Amino acid sequence: MRVGFLGFGEVASKLSEGLMGNGVDVYTCIEGRSTRTRNITEKIGVKISRSYKVLAENSDILISSVVPSNSVEVAEMVGKYTKGIYVDINNVSPKTVKYSLSMIENGKTVDAAIIGSVVRNGVNVKIIASGPFVEDFAQLKGYGMNINVVGSENGQASGIKLLRSAYTKGVSALLFESIYSGYKMGIDRDVLKYISETECPDFRESAVSRIISAAFHAERRSEEMAEVIEMLSEKQEPIMARGTREFFKMLSENIKKPEKRPDDYLEVFKDFMEIKNHF
Amino acid sequence: MRVGFLGFGEVASKLSEGLMGNGVDVYTCIEGRSTRTRNITEKIGVKISRSYKVLAENSDILISSVVPSNSVEVAEMVGKYTKGIYVDINNVSPKTVKYSLSMIENGKTVDAAIIGSVVRNGVNVKIIASGPFVEDFAQLKGYGMNINVVGSENGQASGIKLLRSAYTKGVSALLFESIYSGYKMGIDRDVLKYISETECPDFRESAVSRIISAAFHAERRSEEMAEVIEMLSEKQEPIMARGTREFFKMLSENIKKPEKRPDDYLEVFKDFMEIKNHF
Repeated sequence: MRVGFLGFGEVASKLSEGLMGNGVDVYTCIEGRSTRTRNITEKIGVKISRSYKVLAENSDILISSVVPSNSVEVAEMVGKYTKGIYVDINNVSPKTVKYSLSMIENGKTVDAAIIGSVVRNGVNVKIIASGPFVEDFAQLKGYGMNINVVGSENGQASGIKLLRSAYTKGVSALLFESIYSGYKMGIDRDVLKYISETECPDFRESAVSRIISAAFHAERRSEEMAEVIEMLSEKQEPIMARGTREFFKMLSENIKKPEKRPDDYLEVFKDFMEIKNHF
Repeated sequence: MRVGFLGFGEVASKLSEGLMGNGVDVYTCIEGRSTRTRNITEKIGVKISRSYKVLAENSDILISSVVPSNSVEVAEMVGKYTKGIYVDINNVSPKTVKYSLSMIENGKTVDAAIIGSVVRNGVNVKIIASGPFVEDFAQLKGYGMNINVVGSENGQASGIKLLRSAYTKGVSALLFESIYSGYKMGIDRDVLKYISETECPDFRESAVSRIISAAFHAERRSEEMAEVIEMLSEKQEPIMARGTREFFKMLSENIKKPEKRPDDYLEVFKDFMEIKNHF
């Protein structure tokens, strides 16, 4: 089994380590890539194809794990050379993934999305996948990957991931808004306590980590919500999703102000949540 | 111990039953009240004061449990007669509760808020309370009430309740938006499944009940959010709270349309969530 990676960042390197440990031949191409990427491929010991054309021609399964904004471009580049299964695992909308996959001339395409943290889980990270050739991709379950087939159409896996993300980002924004108002009123601890009582047992801990993460990644969250809004707008007026984007935009702008650094926000919560251990 | 109730709806009747069972003398006044209310007081066997003045003068603890829009008016009416502790347990904002309590001339005031369902829990329902005389109100713990002191200032208990409510209503709106979009894309079950996996064990069941409840109570939710927004606006721009109100407003307007009854929305979820048992 030969698996090729287009792009070799965190996702590709973690999956490669696991696949190689299970006897898979893993390839990538480092043409035009940074020294940092070259060093990572050397460290992991992945095989190097001399061109993207060769990589695409020789991979049984070719996985695109590039930065989201490059997913179309890279599909276009290898579209006519791809012999095996082409899997787009990038964090993009159903519309974008369908467009990228339309570049693959043999039509052997799969839409895949990572649910959870590849850093924490490595090759075992949960992957949901859909598309006409999803069962072929699912062969990699035999090589350590945790692939969950969710359908036979491209766009399903990325749609599930994006809707899940709309929910979890919205929850972070709601939590932040409620707890921060509570802090200003001197009742933050109790607000969290009485919300926790009707939520699940781990709610408090997860709330704390969501609030910290919201403060640190506000700008990225706001950008990611644009993709969600674009998708939802096709079906309905995305009221909560727009609110979530606006919230993270406001937060990121406030955090950039010299008088309101992320640490100020964190200071607010550190005191009452005893969150120091989370750093 | 004599406890008086101003207003005798669901909250007063459930608490009265429990207090009387624990040996408390419970009074109310039915002057100008509906036949329905009179019948309830008779059924429960609560004692009747001949006027609000008498009720206010003779109660060790006087609890205001009226419709939220009447909380100020009723406080004004009994303000100068109240001899004991005056407790406002109405579902109102900190600002409104402080204003109501400012009418009580003896200053023996308490801000209280119910967390959870008095119908399901009766006298044991969780009550949070704050205010200068909160410890006197807390005596009722000895008579079956589940009172949790959260502070010594009026406005704290109602603030906690309102911020909690901002969070839980927002979560319902987020869930509805994500799952309904998922339904239209044919991936609703999987969206719920993959959200559930990183939430708590009971998430799925609670999500279903929140979605149903959102559809049935959309209009009331939208109205209740106005109070939250008023409160939050004093401290920050209430972005998520405004989104939540707008979402429920849109939902309630859609549900009123002849072609979109609540059942239509529920039909959407019934199929895939097997929620019939919840009715």
